[in-house]
Amino acid sequence: MEHLEDHERMDVWKTIEDALFNDQIDQFRAEFLDLHPYDQAKIFEEVEDDVRLQIYTYLSPEEVADVMEHIDYDEIEPFFTEMDPRFAAQVFAEMSTDDAVDILNELDKNKVASFLTIMDDDSAEEIKDLLHYEEKTAGSIMTTEFVVVKAGMTIREAMLHLRKEAPDAETIYYTYVIDEDKRLVGVISLRDLIISEEDWVISDVMSERVVSVSVGEDQEEIARMMRDYDFLALPVVDFQNHLLGIITVDDIMDVMEEEASDDYSKLAAISDVDGPDDRAFTSAKKRLPWLVILLFLGSLTASLIGRFEETLDQVAILAIFIPLIAGMAGNTGTQALAVAVRGIATGETYKQGKSKIVFREAGTGLITGISCGILIFLIVFIWQNNLYLGLLVGLSIMITLIVATLAGALVPLVMHRFNIDPAVASGPFITTINDLISILIYFGLATAFMSLLL
Amino acid sequence: MEHLEDHERMDVWKTIEDALFNDQIDQFRAEFLDLHPYDQAKIFEEVEDDVRLQIYTYLSPEEVADVMEHIDYDEIEPFFTEMDPRFAAQVFAEMSTDDAVDILNELDKNKVASFLTIMDDDSAEEIKDLLHYEEKTAGSIMTTEFVVVKAGMTIREAMLHLRKEAPDAETIYYTYVIDEDKRLVGVISLRDLIISEEDWVISDVMSERVVSVSVGEDQEEIARMMRDYDFLALPVVDFQNHLLGIITVDDIMDVMEEEASDDYSKLAAISDVDGPDDRAFTSAKKRLPWLVILLFLGSLTASLIGRFEETLDQVAILAIFIPLIAGMAGNTGTQALAVAVRGIATGETYKQGKSKIVFREAGTGLITGISCGILIFLIVFIWQNNLYLGLLVGLSIMITLIVATLAGALVPLVMHRFNIDPAVASGPFITTINDLISILIYFGLATAFMSLLL
Repeated sequence: MEHLEDHERMDVWKTIEDALFNDQIDQFRAEFLDLHPYDQAKIFEEVEDDVRLQIYTYLSPEEVADVMEHIDYDEIEPFFTEMDPRFAAQVFAEMSTDDAVDILNELDKNKVASFLTIMDDDSAEEIKDLLHYEEKTAGSIMTTEFVVVKAGMTIREAMLHLRKEAPDAETIYYTYVIDEDKRLVGVISLRDLIISEEDWVISDVMSERVVSVSVGEDQEEIARMMRDYDFLALPVVDFQNHLLGIITVDDIMDVMEEEASDDYSKLAAISDVDGPDDRAFTSAKKRLPWLVILLFLGSLTASLIGRFEETLDQVAILAIFIPLIAGMAGNTGTQALAVAVRGIATGETYKQGKSKIVFREAGTGLITGISCGILIFLIVFIWQNNLYLGLLVGLSIMITLIVATLAGALVPLVMHRFNIDPAVASGPFITTINDLISILIYFGLATAFMSLLL
Repeated sequence: MEHLEDHERMDVWKTIEDALFNDQIDQFRAEFLDLHPYDQAKIFEEVEDDVRLQIYTYLSPEEVADVMEHIDYDEIEPFFTEMDPRFAAQVFAEMSTDDAVDILNELDKNKVASFLTIMDDDSAEEIKDLLHYEEKTAGSIMTTEFVVVKAGMTIREAMLHLRKEAPDAETIYYTYVIDEDKRLVGVISLRDLIISEEDWVISDVMSERVVSVSVGEDQEEIARMMRDYDFLALPVVDFQNHLLGIITVDDIMDVMEEEASDDYSKLAAISDVDGPDDRAFTSAKKRLPWLVILLFLGSLTASLIGRFEETLDQVAILAIFIPLIAGMAGNTGTQALAVAVRGIATGETYKQGKSKIVFREAGTGLITGISCGILIFLIVFIWQNNLYLGLLVGLSIMITLIVATLAGALVPLVMHRFNIDPAVASGPFITTINDLISILIYFGLATAFMSLLL
């Protein structure tokens, strides 16, 4: 079957819901559980509350756990609140620990504590361990449901062990090999397991070059490694190389999406471009803080121009080119900023070295500045038939582009140096800073050469 | 072993290169092939040309193919040009067909034709088939190295078949089930295979609800499905449901990175934020076209203000607020644009309906417009002690924010309607358009109420 389009999904649901309303438990279960958990989750989001309450009574905690893992974490709270707390605790216990932890992090502390109290001790312990890790680190996205074997086992023993563990493990496509002290010593893929002879020993077949990440590693760096090395899972270790958990590729795809969306949001000066944005009010709430900050920065620009009021009074035509010059400063600054932010994100910056980047941006600013400067000189000279005005605007654009390009590149580099996320220096922020700089250059030059313009 | 940091990699290489220079083939092969192909590729990019030529002679085409699959496709051409053409053709034949096709698409047509002529017929045929698919569709990113079994096989027969095919297949973690006409009828994961009894029949164990994509499907949509459904691979079918290929998760991670970087680049008005950007000249080449377009648009703004020269002459203080008003229009437009572009990319737009989005944006513009309008009215009124000037600037900001928010949302929606990639309406582009609108509103109001301002 094809995957379900949004409109198909509710049509499919219409064929299933009769069974629910007529109390035909077996038929409902057969039809509903035949759907992919992602589609089950989308149906959960669409139906009325009382329908959902009835569905819970028809499914096991394990089956509900599968559904919950596919609901947006931003929107999941009401689902767990409407369930019977005992049932909800069982659902958490059945989920992958990494998903359970992600969701519990969205709920309020009291609720989390009460769920953990009701839950069976083993599951509660595993979840509590993971709740301690800092957000966006390996520890916070890893799961503890992995399969390990001892280096001395035969392939036959390992396969038997794997078959037993398969239903609960997050992935069985990599099996990690540990020594007596639970230190990670090797890895073997299921591919290698099934093509090996049954009486071979693991230590002869495993790869000893296990790529692992430390538990405090940043999730963006892990995503980069997984993409570069084409792994389906990565083991997470502590500083003594003890195996703590694994990170699987499906979680990394979510990380990639989250990080990309995050950078994009910041470039557009908005707290979060995605997420539930149904009402104008929620959406205004995400944008207003930025707009207000930018309004105050804009007032600074206005007061700066105010200082040149005398110049403006004498040569009113100067005002015509303010948006052009400020706009070009903003545009070139945003370009340089985007390159620098991506360079830091992809690690290119370390490879090339910061001074090299600053030199390159200075060169880029010089080339674009001279080109645009000459172009606008010609436009203004021909249009206004005024040589000195043309020279003033051309020279201003040239200097502005050089300075603004450097500023766009330097601001994120400096922020990164002081451990501030460089993506916070959003497009509109750098644009407004560059507005200020460009106005200063333009009116400074105009005031200095006033006699030529009159 | 930990994965290799950039500086470690060349240290490791130093311990290996002696073997190469002393012609100790076996030792060199043992040490070099023990590295992950990604690290091998990075070493290839760093060493001198003559060192690489020697390495080729020590490795088999299959081993070189592994390395080539991990080199950036933008930078791969020189490697294939320096190899002996016969050897290069063998390397292509040994690569995954999807990677071979991606690389061949980067080379010039004549070279591609000559490689295909030298190559063995089977491989050439497979590659030629894939070269026809349009870029960024399922066909262009799928590989034809997949494992299929017949529905009537037993688990034992299937496992035997799998063991035989494993070395060449792109993934063996999903096995696809086809009928007599090669139509896709089911899928079975390796996980299910190994926990099944050996004498069970595939058709009893397989899942008949195979999620598949059609060969012309857009790669961004495929990435979304893979993320939502947590798949490691997806089968690609034609309109008669014949299995044509598979797409694996490692390729999808590259697609996600590419699409994210693409949207980000366009928001910053730059042709490509990533890629080899070592020299100021290359980097200026990517930015200048946008800057020149924006320079001409900016000249339009200038000529628009020029039409209000009389107003400006009478009330020079008006000029002070030009960058503030134009800047706010640009900022709010970029926010609305980013939300709309992401909404289209993630499919949220279809779900919510376009008219709902337009209404929401109008509401958002109203809320932000009124808030910022009142705020700036107070600032200007207190600062300049001029009620009418405060009202003028406040009212202008209010109307501007409403119109600019709507424009930011509408432009990508309209572009999408006409099948133009909405991300092309980059941040600076919408910013410049909104500059024009805001100037018109501001000076329009100022001219109309001139008598109050004097």
